[in-house]
Amino acid sequence: MRILITGAAGMIGRKLTDRLCADGALGGKPVTALILHDVVAPPRPAVSMPVTDLTGDLSDPGAAEALVAHRPDVVFHLAGIVSGVAEADFDLGYRVNLDGTRALWDAIRVSGQAPRVVFSSTQAVFGGPFPDVVPDDFAPVPLSSYGAQKLIGETILTDYTRRGFMDGIALRLPTICVRPGRPNGAASGFFSSIIREPLVGQTATLPVSRDWVHTHASPRAAVQFCIHAATLDTSVMGPRRAVTMPGLSVSVGEQIAALTRIAGPGAAALIHEAPDPAVWAIVKTWPQRFAARRARDLGFQAESNFDEIIETHIADELGGRLPEPA
Amino acid sequence: MRILITGAAGMIGRKLTDRLCADGALGGKPVTALILHDVVAPPRPAVSMPVTDLTGDLSDPGAAEALVAHRPDVVFHLAGIVSGVAEADFDLGYRVNLDGTRALWDAIRVSGQAPRVVFSSTQAVFGGPFPDVVPDDFAPVPLSSYGAQKLIGETILTDYTRRGFMDGIALRLPTICVRPGRPNGAASGFFSSIIREPLVGQTATLPVSRDWVHTHASPRAAVQFCIHAATLDTSVMGPRRAVTMPGLSVSVGEQIAALTRIAGPGAAALIHEAPDPAVWAIVKTWPQRFAARRARDLGFQAESNFDEIIETHIADELGGRLPEPA
Repeated sequence: MRILITGAAGMIGRKLTDRLCADGALGGKPVTALILHDVVAPPRPAVSMPVTDLTGDLSDPGAAEALVAHRPDVVFHLAGIVSGVAEADFDLGYRVNLDGTRALWDAIRVSGQAPRVVFSSTQAVFGGPFPDVVPDDFAPVPLSSYGAQKLIGETILTDYTRRGFMDGIALRLPTICVRPGRPNGAASGFFSSIIREPLVGQTATLPVSRDWVHTHASPRAAVQFCIHAATLDTSVMGPRRAVTMPGLSVSVGEQIAALTRIAGPGAAALIHEAPDPAVWAIVKTWPQRFAARRARDLGFQAESNFDEIIETHIADELGGRLPEPA
Repeated sequence: MRILITGAAGMIGRKLTDRLCADGALGGKPVTALILHDVVAPPRPAVSMPVTDLTGDLSDPGAAEALVAHRPDVVFHLAGIVSGVAEADFDLGYRVNLDGTRALWDAIRVSGQAPRVVFSSTQAVFGGPFPDVVPDDFAPVPLSSYGAQKLIGETILTDYTRRGFMDGIALRLPTICVRPGRPNGAASGFFSSIIREPLVGQTATLPVSRDWVHTHASPRAAVQFCIHAATLDTSVMGPRRAVTMPGLSVSVGEQIAALTRIAGPGAAALIHEAPDPAVWAIVKTWPQRFAARRARDLGFQAESNFDEIIETHIADELGGRLPEPA
């Protein structure tokens, strides 16, 4: 299997690369080539398989064709400008998220190779008002340029799949939690920081009510969504190729209860409640629960409780155990 | 009011031009300029207002900017490659329906004028399986490249409206019936030809069952949708700018019953039933009824019975009366 990953230096890209290197195979077939692409050089995996690192902007003329010239059997298209940046920088968002994606789809079309294509889309394709549980056939109306760009990528992927140019699946990912690394400026960042920081003895701020419910999946679950999408039997899918991924819907209070069970009341005490009207104004427009029935029927699985999400974070990011209290 | 119409030589474009010339005003304000664009020269209306005819391909470099340089207050974007041609000619469909539309939206964005924009979209953005009545929040998954291209046009229009670059409305039009002129190759053509041809003493072929229900609006109703969209108060619409237009849902048998009431059993006898499995294979995938509640709440109105649709055709296309039998 020859595998292309765009956005390979990103959080999911690096974890997917590691997973493929660890498995050495995808869907039972050995991985014979990894083509890793990003705007910055992806970390080079310590494996014996042929790895090609490519650095550049997918929307540059010829860039997508150069990637597809490596004749991938499977393409994971994870590259993209994140939501806040795509909103702040109109040109950059449309250029990378729309033109770059379309350039890749067209290079695949022209190649005639019809690879499996897994596209990281987002639940931000949806905009409210929402029913209590968002069903699979709910009409997406994005309330961000990022969501609009991802929805357009889905739409072309779906049409190109129908026409036989590729065998595509778009994964509408939920919020990834616990997101490793430094706090970022995203309005959703607190869902991760209220867990990640207290686990290592640091304080975190909770800007919304403990009653608020949100849908999460761990980074490990997101990687497994990608692997499953690359290997499932798409002949049962029909023309609807954008699939809302499952996730765990929990309140902030339930997140904190799980933290307390795992790391004790001292960890939970590091969370400072500081209601922030600006954050709440954004968060309250977000959907809370998704049916995701179709994804589950197709075999996509998310965590079933928040303890599992925290334990995955401890295993994957903290070496399997909590640091000793200072 | 300075008004730009793309696709001005098309069926709806010509009727909209005639309507604007007859009214001399739009939303109570006098029409001071008409800028008419198409790939072939639109018929020049016999009016005393300044009319600019422009001929060319909207996707050519600079073409969209040249149109927007006329500083329209209202843009009716009706131009497009029809469904069957967009499916048969991949490059042409994506170039005109996607690139041409995006070029126009971007020229409008760059102009900073934020005009009202009315975009002729289609109920072909939807693909089955369908509920009995398609609700307004049903997820569009096109089963044609034409539908995909229109959906992308809607998505960018919606995002550009949210960002303040335009004040856009996309009208998801039902099948237009009775379509004037010669029979065309469209699979939906028989819905019009079984009325149009018998009214003038000619035979027509019915390729599907009389039980089949479909949703129709007259050309006059479609023009009124455009006028209403150009003049309604969009401040009540919120971010959802693609609206499924209302129509009349009737069976083929009800169409024929109306024809019999208006033109007599001799006209209905000119319809030859000749079931065509190839046509049926396409038609049976189409939605039958739409709720279109939101459009009705916004004041869009379609015909309430098929007699009215036939009488509109006789008034607008046959000079108000049926020809004498030969």
